[in-house]
Amino acid sequence: METGASRRTWIETLKLVPPSLSDNTADQERFITALQKRLGTSAIQLDLDLARALPALLRRWDYRLRCALIHDREIWHVCGLTGAADPRPLCGMAIDLGTTRIVLSLLHLETGQVLQEDSFDNPQGTIGPDVLTRVHHADQEGGLNHLKHLVVEGLNRMIGGLCERARIERDRIVLLALAGNTTMTHLFMGLSPHWIIREPYIPVVNRPGIPSAVRLGLDVAAGARIIIFPNIGSYFGGDLIAGILYSELDRREQPALLVDVGTNAEVVLGDQNWLIACAGAAGPALESGVSRIGTTARPGAIDQVRIRGANRRFEMRTIDNAPPLGICGSGVIDLAAQLFTSGMIDIQGRFVPAACGERLIKSDGERQLVIAEADITATGKALTISQSDLDSLMRSKAAMYTILETITEAVGMTPPQLTTFFVAGTFGAFIDPRSAITIGMLPDLPLACYRTLGNSSLEGAKTVLQQPQSLERIDRIRDRITYMELNVNQAFMNRFSAAKFLPHTNPGLFPSVVTPSTTRAAGV
Amino acid sequence: METGASRRTWIETLKLVPPSLSDNTADQERFITALQKRLGTSAIQLDLDLARALPALLRRWDYRLRCALIHDREIWHVCGLTGAADPRPLCGMAIDLGTTRIVLSLLHLETGQVLQEDSFDNPQGTIGPDVLTRVHHADQEGGLNHLKHLVVEGLNRMIGGLCERARIERDRIVLLALAGNTTMTHLFMGLSPHWIIREPYIPVVNRPGIPSAVRLGLDVAAGARIIIFPNIGSYFGGDLIAGILYSELDRREQPALLVDVGTNAEVVLGDQNWLIACAGAAGPALESGVSRIGTTARPGAIDQVRIRGANRRFEMRTIDNAPPLGICGSGVIDLAAQLFTSGMIDIQGRFVPAACGERLIKSDGERQLVIAEADITATGKALTISQSDLDSLMRSKAAMYTILETITEAVGMTPPQLTTFFVAGTFGAFIDPRSAITIGMLPDLPLACYRTLGNSSLEGAKTVLQQPQSLERIDRIRDRITYMELNVNQAFMNRFSAAKFLPHTNPGLFPSVVTPSTTRAAGV
Repeated sequence: METGASRRTWIETLKLVPPSLSDNTADQERFITALQKRLGTSAIQLDLDLARALPALLRRWDYRLRCALIHDREIWHVCGLTGAADPRPLCGMAIDLGTTRIVLSLLHLETGQVLQEDSFDNPQGTIGPDVLTRVHHADQEGGLNHLKHLVVEGLNRMIGGLCERARIERDRIVLLALAGNTTMTHLFMGLSPHWIIREPYIPVVNRPGIPSAVRLGLDVAAGARIIIFPNIGSYFGGDLIAGILYSELDRREQPALLVDVGTNAEVVLGDQNWLIACAGAAGPALESGVSRIGTTARPGAIDQVRIRGANRRFEMRTIDNAPPLGICGSGVIDLAAQLFTSGMIDIQGRFVPAACGERLIKSDGERQLVIAEADITATGKALTISQSDLDSLMRSKAAMYTILETITEAVGMTPPQLTTFFVAGTFGAFIDPRSAITIGMLPDLPLACYRTLGNSSLEGAKTVLQQPQSLERIDRIRDRITYMELNVNQAFMNRFSAAKFLPHTNPGLFPSVVTPSTTRAAGV
Repeated sequence: METGASRRTWIETLKLVPPSLSDNTADQERFITALQKRLGTSAIQLDLDLARALPALLRRWDYRLRCALIHDREIWHVCGLTGAADPRPLCGMAIDLGTTRIVLSLLHLETGQVLQEDSFDNPQGTIGPDVLTRVHHADQEGGLNHLKHLVVEGLNRMIGGLCERARIERDRIVLLALAGNTTMTHLFMGLSPHWIIREPYIPVVNRPGIPSAVRLGLDVAAGARIIIFPNIGSYFGGDLIAGILYSELDRREQPALLVDVGTNAEVVLGDQNWLIACAGAAGPALESGVSRIGTTARPGAIDQVRIRGANRRFEMRTIDNAPPLGICGSGVIDLAAQLFTSGMIDIQGRFVPAACGERLIKSDGERQLVIAEADITATGKALTISQSDLDSLMRSKAAMYTILETITEAVGMTPPQLTTFFVAGTFGAFIDPRSAITIGMLPDLPLACYRTLGNSSLEGAKTVLQQPQSLERIDRIRDRITYMELNVNQAFMNRFSAAKFLPHTNPGLFPSVVTPSTTRAAGV
């Protein structure tokens, strides 16, 4: 007898005793009784649509079948059925429901193998690129349904495409797992996000549970269930819980920190005994780059910058080596670090005219530094970064560091005491930790301490489908997290002000960063 | 802390702590936490549609509300919500889903008071009056859905009508209870009845549970649940379980018998310690009367017959005193008893020409007795009963008695040892027990032992809505019943043959019945 926690498969294979005049038990109860014996539990639920199909299926399969089961608290739900001898797999679908991008991974539920994976732009982007615009749209007449349908239709299209490529019927998908931030999850479920963005910031649900996927509009197997990752609150969503699951932060002996770098900085610190989390606005500069020349990571986006030699020659890499059309978030961090180490900006992030030379121009009433001349860009116009762009970046990186400092201090640590530092999210995967340390955005740890997780939201969703025993960890993680409200009080503002320098007012915190002034002081 | 079993109300009144910056729990979890404290349980489920409505409702109601809850095994389901101060009641709907007639009763769920009650012909009657025709129709392409929609639409119309008369919005109906035979229940749920009528007679489900009413197509409150009475098998349905609940057979100290008289005779015998049941075909003669002149109980149907005086004058009562157009089931039993006691038929149920006199004619090649002359009937034709009509009735009454004898003997009793005899069903309510005893259809017990239950299927459904603590009795009743397969073997056939006399081959079983021969022997 396996308990839910130790269960290593979603699938049970059963052979029922066929009915006879001396045993006229109904089809459903015959099936459930066999499952009860197998699972050692009495509470088994069969969806009405599966019950409707059961009589014909049992007889076609000669009372031998495989079935997928998931338990939601005390009840085991049958989410899929197939004949014992059917060679086709029962499948799972992991979904990372990002604000910008949605990624899906089709899995063989019986082996855990990934069959297909693909992504598409969140169709809600047509309403607005950011969360706030969508929340306001949801308040309009019919707006919430519109947003829900956009994402559900997009998911159904992509599910259809992945199934076609894998030559799998879509009704073989019996279990799904979805991780997203609190607002995206609400919109997917048709729950109003109205109060998420309004004080005191209350979601409709913290634990969406494991509802029927068909009820939510997904075109998959009739009884399919969808594991929706829970949230801690409006600003700490299921994508982060998925990240914790994937990183195994909750199982570590030594404390580690996990940060999702974006417009919001979401941070969890902890180990197998405790987990503490907070989230705070870091400003848009980090994720989508600085305003005028910022761009998402797409062909032509500058994602790496090096400034070399005495003549400060710019070497830039663009995605797909396309002509530059802007600079993405990781590129901006790289650029700022290089400008600083080459002496072109000072510790306050201000341009140093003597070092910038002819690259420094005045335009639109302020100083701008030419990154790429007009003759090499995709647009035919020069790419420049302005003083106010740099100021914005300084605020963002300072906010990020202050949040990290605040959460570590809350448990009596300092950032340099961390031994493992997980950087979650797609954006995080592209950051050069060396550059992020140089500008004082991330603490000055040995580079080996930094571990990028990639799309940890998707990976977490895949983890639960591949490892049934991890299902219960999701709720345990949620329940163990102490959410710390970031009070933007005087102490926070003092820390923030101290962090608005390159790398920091206290260079002792960043011993590895060789600043130009240090260099100068050394007489170079 | 109340457990489910002892709970005396469906409704809880709650006052939640409003959200604040220091308590950002989501609306759903805030509500569920308050319920968990009240009920002392952790497993509470809120329907997605209720969750969607919750944020606006909580704020409108200032976090004070009444909610209706029902538990299905380990999980408590929230099935309805209203503001604490809302004067309008939360309502329930009891449904007797008969093959011929459907009866609904709208209740105030908080007081148990009946607000409205009405009935309508089962719209599936347009497909066929009997169960078999409908089962065959369900096998046709689209037939099952057609039958389901007929009954669901009929229910929705009647629900609308009752609500209008009671001035109640239909979304105030948050809990329903439905009792019907196994086939009617299957058709309502869209479950194929195909195997119900085919050996070895297997229903799709024995325990339909407490599904969402909206999911089944009913136009009531979004979260409403419907308690569907379980069945023991193809021929012992939820209507009987409802009858046991209503009669409290399962709580008696002394054994009693409950019989539902109809085309099938369904019988349960038992007390608080044991319950044994069987069902068998009694033939159509009892329920819808004898073929040519038989009719359902409607205006003009003869429902009572007395034959008085030496000249054997017929006194007949018709429903609504309308001109006679036929004879209903209870009328036939009355007629046979009177023909027997007046000496017009003998102990084999054969006409006695000397006693019948001019009423006995020959028509269609057989003897017929004129019940009503052409000049007083609604049709302008004489109403007659033929010898083959009487033979059919003899077989039906013999089958009924044999079934009663078989089940009582199975527990070491004889029918005369019974002290309480419940007669269930609308038809049963009209039978004159004296006449039924006279023809030997029911055992010769003191008349006070006979208790007619009326529409015990509807009353059972009302009982569970009025007494929440009786919910768990339904499953206990189902689980405690030992279903005895009626083996039509030699012993059964011997008993059946002995019962094909008036009142019986063994008149000692019917001491109270004064047969004409007895009278003659006494020299009258």
